[in-house]
Amino acid sequence: MRRHRPDALRELVESYLGELAFTPELGALEEVLRYPLESGGKRIRPVLCLAVGEAVGAEAERCLPAAVALELVHTFSLVHDDLPALDDDDERRGRPSAHIAFGEGVALLAGDALLAEAFRLALSYPSTAVARELAQATLGMIGGQYRDVTGDTSDLAALHRLKTGCLFAASVGLALAVAEVPEREQAPWRSFGAELGLLFQIVDDVLDGDGYAERHGAEGARALADEAAARAHERLGAIPADTSMLAEIVGGLAARTS
Amino acid sequence: MRRHRPDALRELVESYLGELAFTPELGALEEVLRYPLESGGKRIRPVLCLAVGEAVGAEAERCLPAAVALELVHTFSLVHDDLPALDDDDERRGRPSAHIAFGEGVALLAGDALLAEAFRLALSYPSTAVARELAQATLGMIGGQYRDVTGDTSDLAALHRLKTGCLFAASVGLALAVAEVPEREQAPWRSFGAELGLLFQIVDDVLDGDGYAERHGAEGARALADEAAARAHERLGAIPADTSMLAEIVGGLAARTS
Repeated sequence: MRRHRPDALRELVESYLGELAFTPELGALEEVLRYPLESGGKRIRPVLCLAVGEAVGAEAERCLPAAVALELVHTFSLVHDDLPALDDDDERRGRPSAHIAFGEGVALLAGDALLAEAFRLALSYPSTAVARELAQATLGMIGGQYRDVTGDTSDLAALHRLKTGCLFAASVGLALAVAEVPEREQAPWRSFGAELGLLFQIVDDVLDGDGYAERHGAEGARALADEAAARAHERLGAIPADTSMLAEIVGGLAARTS
Repeated sequence: MRRHRPDALRELVESYLGELAFTPELGALEEVLRYPLESGGKRIRPVLCLAVGEAVGAEAERCLPAAVALELVHTFSLVHDDLPALDDDDERRGRPSAHIAFGEGVALLAGDALLAEAFRLALSYPSTAVARELAQATLGMIGGQYRDVTGDTSDLAALHRLKTGCLFAASVGLALAVAEVPEREQAPWRSFGAELGLLFQIVDDVLDGDGYAERHGAEGARALADEAAARAHERLGAIPADTSMLAEIVGGLAARTS
């Protein structure tokens, strides 16, 4: 089976997103859903999902609806997070946030619609397994956001395991569900998936100078990121499949500068 | 098979809701999900769903997760609608709205979680059909909310067909999906389902003195409600099943005073 390089997987995601037909009943709200989706995200979660899919024998084309469902959930969470009621961020990726561009009420509804559209995509598979993984991950993520917003940051690792980790773990989990990998073969993949969110988050904090960087200093946080990357590579090494593309993605996650 | 009377169906819904276990990762946010669910709604959508289920041969117990998923979607929409970004309502059913009781950010997250929990429930069935109906109905409802919030009220019937009608139609659609009623036998049920939202909405406007009552006067709106009820009864009459409980529910919808 063909294995795409990470850049090629990202192009598949972009092209699928560009052609994605939303529910017609949304009317002109569709434009508001497209706006945050078209702002040049890194598409890390869907690319991971596609790469895991290819490693377990599922064509990228088959995994695309699941992969893009993850990106829709991620985008829904950003649109709602940016609202004044939560982070009150006027900008996102160098452009006005959705609520600045379209108004708060409309952005709120667009976030809701992105979540529902994510489930519609996840429900395009014959089994409920893909959408069930997505529901669990979404609920875990919301649990993390709740800890964050209520200032329950005593256990930073637990907070990020939920807020960031659940959706990264789901990048792996959804691919396993699409490929119908039997439960008994999933454990090493799940262990790998559990490391990704932490790696992403620590690097994020190093780049932004907050969170882990604030708590452990820039060098301390960098060391934690390197440890997380080493663990992710180690977990990958324990998987009996060709995980070379995934190793490249992990390397990219650890070394990213934006 | 046993047919419950509407009041008994409502009790089943209340008791299922009371014992419903939410995703543990939500932590203390669970309390915020329970708050608007425990405020004494009429449970019209889940009761309808259970009654349709029984009419097509599905035990109420089997339909309960789907029925309660509808109530969660309805409640999610109320929690978000009440936010200052949309209707800015401080009160709901005689109590402070969720965002007044718990803060805007927390209420926003609770609404998100209610929607995701609704999908989790709908995904407890072996087939994807139940959750697919729920996703379509949710997206239609959001499309209606968008028309409402942007003042696109030129076609009031179209607005309500989306905003209110989709979830009522889904009360029927989800029951058909749970009972696995074949596509070719669904048409008369769908015709019935399509009438319910309008009936509910016109009566609502008569009671509140707005919408249809504002546009057609109290008497004009009352006449429209009676016509909608007559159509719903007529559609019911065309269904080759014992629809006596449903006729009672339609009668209750038309005659309700709160």
